[in-house]
Amino acid sequence: MTFVYAFDHRHPQSPMSLKDLLGGKGANLAEMTSVLELPVPPGFTISTEACRSYMAGGWPDGLSGEVDNQLVALEKAMDKRLGDPSDPLLVSVRSGAKFSMPGMMDTVLNLGLNDESVEGLAKQTGDDRFAYDSYRRFIQMFGKIVLDVPGDAFEHVFEAAKERTGTANDADLGADDLAQVVQGFKELVQEHTGAAFPQDPQVQLRQAIEAVFSSWNSPRANAYRTREKLSHDLGTAVNVQAMVFGNKGDDCGTGVGFTRDPSTGARGAYGDFLVNAQGEDVVAGTRATQPLSDLAELFPAVYDELVAIFGRLERHYRDMLDTEFTIEQGKLWMLQTRVGKRTGTAALRMAVEMTTDDHIRLTPAEAVSRITADHLDSVLHPQFAAGSRTVLTKGLAASPGGGVGRAYFSADDAAEAAARGEQVVLVRNETSPEDIHGMAVAEGILTARGGLVSHAAVVARGWGKPAVCGAEEIRIDGASFSIGDTTVSEGDVISIDGSTGEVVLGAVELTVGTVPDEFTTVLGWADEIRAGHLAVRANADTGDDAARARTFGAEGIGLCRTEHMFLGEDRLPVVREMILAFTPEAEEAALEKLRTVQKADFLEVLEAMDGLPVTVRLLDPPLHEFLPDVEQLAVTQATVGLSETEAQLLAAARWWREVNPMLGTRGVRLGVIKPGLYAMQVRALMEAAAERAAAGGTPVVEVMIPLTISREELALARSWVEGAIEEAADTSSGIDVTIGTMVETPRAALRAGEIAEVADFFSFGTNDLTQMALGFSRDDIEGRVMGPYLEQGLLAHNPFETIDTDGVGELVRLAASRGRSAKPGLKLGVCGEHGGDPESISLFFDAGLDYVSCSPYRVPIARLAAAQAVLAARGAAGAGGSDTR
Amino acid sequence: MTFVYAFDHRHPQSPMSLKDLLGGKGANLAEMTSVLELPVPPGFTISTEACRSYMAGGWPDGLSGEVDNQLVALEKAMDKRLGDPSDPLLVSVRSGAKFSMPGMMDTVLNLGLNDESVEGLAKQTGDDRFAYDSYRRFIQMFGKIVLDVPGDAFEHVFEAAKERTGTANDADLGADDLAQVVQGFKELVQEHTGAAFPQDPQVQLRQAIEAVFSSWNSPRANAYRTREKLSHDLGTAVNVQAMVFGNKGDDCGTGVGFTRDPSTGARGAYGDFLVNAQGEDVVAGTRATQPLSDLAELFPAVYDELVAIFGRLERHYRDMLDTEFTIEQGKLWMLQTRVGKRTGTAALRMAVEMTTDDHIRLTPAEAVSRITADHLDSVLHPQFAAGSRTVLTKGLAASPGGGVGRAYFSADDAAEAAARGEQVVLVRNETSPEDIHGMAVAEGILTARGGLVSHAAVVARGWGKPAVCGAEEIRIDGASFSIGDTTVSEGDVISIDGSTGEVVLGAVELTVGTVPDEFTTVLGWADEIRAGHLAVRANADTGDDAARARTFGAEGIGLCRTEHMFLGEDRLPVVREMILAFTPEAEEAALEKLRTVQKADFLEVLEAMDGLPVTVRLLDPPLHEFLPDVEQLAVTQATVGLSETEAQLLAAARWWREVNPMLGTRGVRLGVIKPGLYAMQVRALMEAAAERAAAGGTPVVEVMIPLTISREELALARSWVEGAIEEAADTSSGIDVTIGTMVETPRAALRAGEIAEVADFFSFGTNDLTQMALGFSRDDIEGRVMGPYLEQGLLAHNPFETIDTDGVGELVRLAASRGRSAKPGLKLGVCGEHGGDPESISLFFDAGLDYVSCSPYRVPIARLAAAQAVLAARGAAGAGGSDTR
Repeated sequence: MTFVYAFDHRHPQSPMSLKDLLGGKGANLAEMTSVLELPVPPGFTISTEACRSYMAGGWPDGLSGEVDNQLVALEKAMDKRLGDPSDPLLVSVRSGAKFSMPGMMDTVLNLGLNDESVEGLAKQTGDDRFAYDSYRRFIQMFGKIVLDVPGDAFEHVFEAAKERTGTANDADLGADDLAQVVQGFKELVQEHTGAAFPQDPQVQLRQAIEAVFSSWNSPRANAYRTREKLSHDLGTAVNVQAMVFGNKGDDCGTGVGFTRDPSTGARGAYGDFLVNAQGEDVVAGTRATQPLSDLAELFPAVYDELVAIFGRLERHYRDMLDTEFTIEQGKLWMLQTRVGKRTGTAALRMAVEMTTDDHIRLTPAEAVSRITADHLDSVLHPQFAAGSRTVLTKGLAASPGGGVGRAYFSADDAAEAAARGEQVVLVRNETSPEDIHGMAVAEGILTARGGLVSHAAVVARGWGKPAVCGAEEIRIDGASFSIGDTTVSEGDVISIDGSTGEVVLGAVELTVGTVPDEFTTVLGWADEIRAGHLAVRANADTGDDAARARTFGAEGIGLCRTEHMFLGEDRLPVVREMILAFTPEAEEAALEKLRTVQKADFLEVLEAMDGLPVTVRLLDPPLHEFLPDVEQLAVTQATVGLSETEAQLLAAARWWREVNPMLGTRGVRLGVIKPGLYAMQVRALMEAAAERAAAGGTPVVEVMIPLTISREELALARSWVEGAIEEAADTSSGIDVTIGTMVETPRAALRAGEIAEVADFFSFGTNDLTQMALGFSRDDIEGRVMGPYLEQGLLAHNPFETIDTDGVGELVRLAASRGRSAKPGLKLGVCGEHGGDPESISLFFDAGLDYVSCSPYRVPIARLAAAQAVLAARGAAGAGGSDTR
Repeated sequence: MTFVYAFDHRHPQSPMSLKDLLGGKGANLAEMTSVLELPVPPGFTISTEACRSYMAGGWPDGLSGEVDNQLVALEKAMDKRLGDPSDPLLVSVRSGAKFSMPGMMDTVLNLGLNDESVEGLAKQTGDDRFAYDSYRRFIQMFGKIVLDVPGDAFEHVFEAAKERTGTANDADLGADDLAQVVQGFKELVQEHTGAAFPQDPQVQLRQAIEAVFSSWNSPRANAYRTREKLSHDLGTAVNVQAMVFGNKGDDCGTGVGFTRDPSTGARGAYGDFLVNAQGEDVVAGTRATQPLSDLAELFPAVYDELVAIFGRLERHYRDMLDTEFTIEQGKLWMLQTRVGKRTGTAALRMAVEMTTDDHIRLTPAEAVSRITADHLDSVLHPQFAAGSRTVLTKGLAASPGGGVGRAYFSADDAAEAAARGEQVVLVRNETSPEDIHGMAVAEGILTARGGLVSHAAVVARGWGKPAVCGAEEIRIDGASFSIGDTTVSEGDVISIDGSTGEVVLGAVELTVGTVPDEFTTVLGWADEIRAGHLAVRANADTGDDAARARTFGAEGIGLCRTEHMFLGEDRLPVVREMILAFTPEAEEAALEKLRTVQKADFLEVLEAMDGLPVTVRLLDPPLHEFLPDVEQLAVTQATVGLSETEAQLLAAARWWREVNPMLGTRGVRLGVIKPGLYAMQVRALMEAAAERAAAGGTPVVEVMIPLTISREELALARSWVEGAIEEAADTSSGIDVTIGTMVETPRAALRAGEIAEVADFFSFGTNDLTQMALGFSRDDIEGRVMGPYLEQGLLAHNPFETIDTDGVGELVRLAASRGRSAKPGLKLGVCGEHGGDPESISLFFDAGLDYVSCSPYRVPIARLAAAQAVLAARGAAGAGGSDTR
């Protein structure tokens, strides 16, 4: 059995397809060396098989021999020897699993240094200080990672040395000082391990390899794999590579290069470099770097070689690459390459341009696959510019984009300040419909309570406005809030990042989101790919929302919530009238008033979505949501007293108040105990549709019953709806109306077969399904429990962001399959917040859903994700593996 | 095809096994006639096949001919002719489906009467009045049921006749008056149907048969079948039987007879009769009946014949029978027989005595099968005595038994009144732990709010005390309550029936429940049958409860709720201390105090259940349950102000308050955010167990984690428990401890396979599983929504009483099977309220559970139901049908 492969080993297939064996880093190094034959410092990879064998039964037989052979070859190739006191070979040792994994041992540099070879290094570089600094860094890194000596013990010795010499900066310590530090470090190692720091490079190497193997099973690595659902059996590879130096003189240098500009996507080499420096100097920013273009003058031959390599890399990988390189005494070495990170603008531009690049010839499907939701978000919303900042606190990333403004603590104050021309951020414990005017003028919304589907979050996403919600550390007290010792008062400027949840004191620079032309091109391709597979609709409650959704490419409305129509300033009193009604006549009269306003609302929505389906959900929330707060009224009663109306409202609010409103008198249950309500809503809807049809429009109406648990319930609700449709038949016959139900209780999912018998469509309400399946009240859990659960790996994701695949996902799959078994043509959609989440969309596609519905600003992301789900399925089918659909 | 069978038809098998064909009533009549050859008035049954054929394609070919033939035979047998003006044959027409079904046409009597034959009846009975009264009743019944004439139209005519003659009682109308009523009724029929009342008996019969067929599809019958999950395709049979008369003179009579005393179970004929009377006179109670024993003197031959028939019936049916008989001119006719209803005492006595009766030889298994939960309840709790009463309102039957006492509206007032020697009923909107002292002294508890698992209900059942909960019509106002116009003030006597939910003004007589010896015998047999199949444990939180449960036969504790231990007057302040703790030290100190008291609690419980398993559930409810009411404190704050402690409590109560506490920070989630809590509880438990073991006891401890949703969560919680066990290892090693989890979220049920890997047992929390699967908050749904849902057939049962077989039941079955697949020996139990419900117990047995756990007073019922579930499975297996397990 072979355990070790040189980078230039001739594998029978592309090394990039051998990540299982070589790990990601090893595969890339082998690809560059053996396939592209780039100038890569030689080295070898100890395979994951060796690691697995080590975990099963200790150091594998034969491994030492293989490593020795490879070392001999390496010394020969580099014409240097490990431990040579005049010109030593130094190596780096790095872990490299199939998947990138924080929590494992990362890198030991300069392995091979000892009391003798450090002198050789000094000679070769002509820099004593550098040599001893390298040695002390090696002992520190090796001591901490391989020998388990506490890291801060080294810091103490180092600080003591600075004190002794009276210097403040590390850089001010001279070679002699550092030699003394080396001595101190070696004593520390002796003290903690009971043995001298190993001077034999062979021993150093063996210990480092074992440390990499062992780090695979460190608690952090285990926790990470559990969270990411990665197998614990894969093991990691170990890469041993000869070190080269960019700091041996002015014929040396080091840099970072991109094959295209990662910010704009513009063609041409891009990057930074430093003459006579090491890699970490480029990254640390201690010296000002030079643009890569300067290399053309300073090292013209190297520059030409590098540009040629960039071209070969792009042609080979068919993507933009990020590289690290070093020039050692005029010779170019490529240290690393990987597909480069990029901004949204760059991603879109490169994806489109590469389709017409003769050497790359990306297909539109490949272009679509390279764009992420974050890329689209970043061109749709302003973003925090790059740079460091002090984060005051983090809440939930509730609606993407950055917002900067003065903090105001009430909607009225925010509105007044905005009227004065100020930019404002509205800060509230939580928002309610009464805050709408303050939210409308704000640059961003920050709440201390509530989760991803709280009022603030849902409204902000609907408006494409940044929001950070559930920032539980914030304590609001009148017109200021505090976080620990920091107090932010009314008028102080704060910045919030709704993409990360960060809250920053002061103004953070924003990069304005601009939608490039390639956005339209890529989404057009996405639409072609997903056509006939998965449609994308929007959740929209008003004509304006519907119109906006349509410009974003929505193919209908999957959820029009009628309760939002009940909350307008002019409607709330009428809704309360209905709730308070003591006689059927009074109730009837209130319903009649509501019918008129509802009709007007429906008319606007149907007009904006003319020709496309509009799913109208009949009233869902518990009635007490339309009544005032009990506690506030009780206090008023005890202090200044209540008016007769207020007293009635208090009594009603007490009567309708529920212990667990989520699981209370809402949805179709309201219909059962107030039978006139749903009939009124359907009449209003049919009248609006009739008016649209009379005006030459094409209304397509889907009436949706919420919170169903059984066939009997839906059959009854259907009879009300059909009754109301029948009543309106003289003006609205011929209009396309279907009747369906939300599937949002676990029971409805289980009984989907029966329920389908009386449904034209199902729409999965995955928010509520998640709440009930997990017993997670979104209002309560996201702030208090979600954080600890995510941190401790008890949940892989926030299940309100990305659907819980194993639990809620099973209910969705099961309901889809039972529903379709009973009624093959049953239309299936989803209208929870998950409808805009790429990972969830993939699950919905796999479950056979016909459409997803999400907030208008998420529609482009859903179009992209839907296409990617289709492509993934095709890939799986094409691969012909067990994964086919 | 044969559609019609005479009662004396020689069927190839026992008619009782042909209920599918003959219906229940027809089968019984055929059994008595053709098998037992009892003197039954002849007649014939039109089969369910005829009905099905009629429903499919109208009146079946050949049916008329068959009916005609049977009529000819009937006339011959009775030596009378239909419509004969001198001595007419009269018949009854009755529906009779396989299952007894309210909502279908029941009975038309005296068919065959017309303007001529009424005179013949008068002549034969020598009673003109009776003849015309029979005729007018026939027209009224036939008109209403067969011809669809509104029933109150007949009433108007009848009342008008009474007014005209100036009489108040029906009985005061003479024969002539009744003849006039007949005339009025005929005009009414003409008016409503446009045709004369049919005079031809053949036409009458044909119409009556069609009316029975059609009644199968009446809306009420359909709704009933839907609710009871009966097939709509069965159809009903029609029974046509010659009428006999017990009112033709003093050689006539009629009565109701039981083969044994249905109240006491004593051997020997028992019943009532009347000389010269019709059946309805016996039932109506207008004349004082004579005991059946008097018959021995008055009609000695008939009496001997009847007693002999009783003997034959008992030997044949192997049970106590209820019969109706008529003596017509000295001849005995048996009109009906069926298995008789009986009291609990009688049921137990008869079941046991019939095992030693040489002619009956009931097996113990059969004896067990004949006892119902109601039978046991009635001997365990006092009951409302028979008799009519005016029911003020109905609430939920929350805890069985009757209670009578003076109404008091606060626990303090109730306790004071009880101290004065009064019997009291505690009336509250809802109860909380602060009401315990008032509940303890009450004869019964009545609440306006809350469901079957509300505090009042759970506590009352635990104590075996009657309770009616969620009586929503009650409006409590200070020291009185009103229902409509009735006001009940403090001190007024009311009676409540916790078995039916009835609330009655004034004192209802109670029959005291006494436990007969046969109770023990029958439950002993039940235990033998269920041994090794399904164990029965109790839910008990204190030593007293545990001891009581053990006397009722509990084989362990399936649920010991530790939160109830937190609510004692001495503990609550310490619990609050822990919640308010600002520093880890303060929290630690509070936990330490709690540990001491918890240990004492555990010690009592373990002692009472020595040698049997005790499942201790770690703290489950949200912390705000231990904090005072926010609204009340807010009002105090706004009026008189708060002390510093109160202000802290208010802040804490606000902080911990949740929108949906059911789905909030409770169960294992509490453990995650307050890690010291569970460790403290386990330490206390292990110390108690060690103390028991040291004292020579045998503690068997099961530690249960509530509200789990994933494997990771349980693995983490398990590590805390194991840590605490390890800490206590020096005193408690060798003690039998297992660690398991509640399965009470739908996700836990779905992921049971994974969760089982880290669980020693599952206990299904079917209360919460029901709440989450159906989205039914028990606190909110039972009062407001459950009533309408049950009335409208949207739910077959209250799913908190009897498990929702199709939804929650599927989750239980699925979790049991996934859990056992992953870990074959996994112990499975249930500790929700369903653990004491017979129908649910049957499902749990079928799902393979090892035990059920219920409140102590339900333990006998659970033992019985568990045995019956085992017997049902054996029966199904024995039958060898598709139903085998």
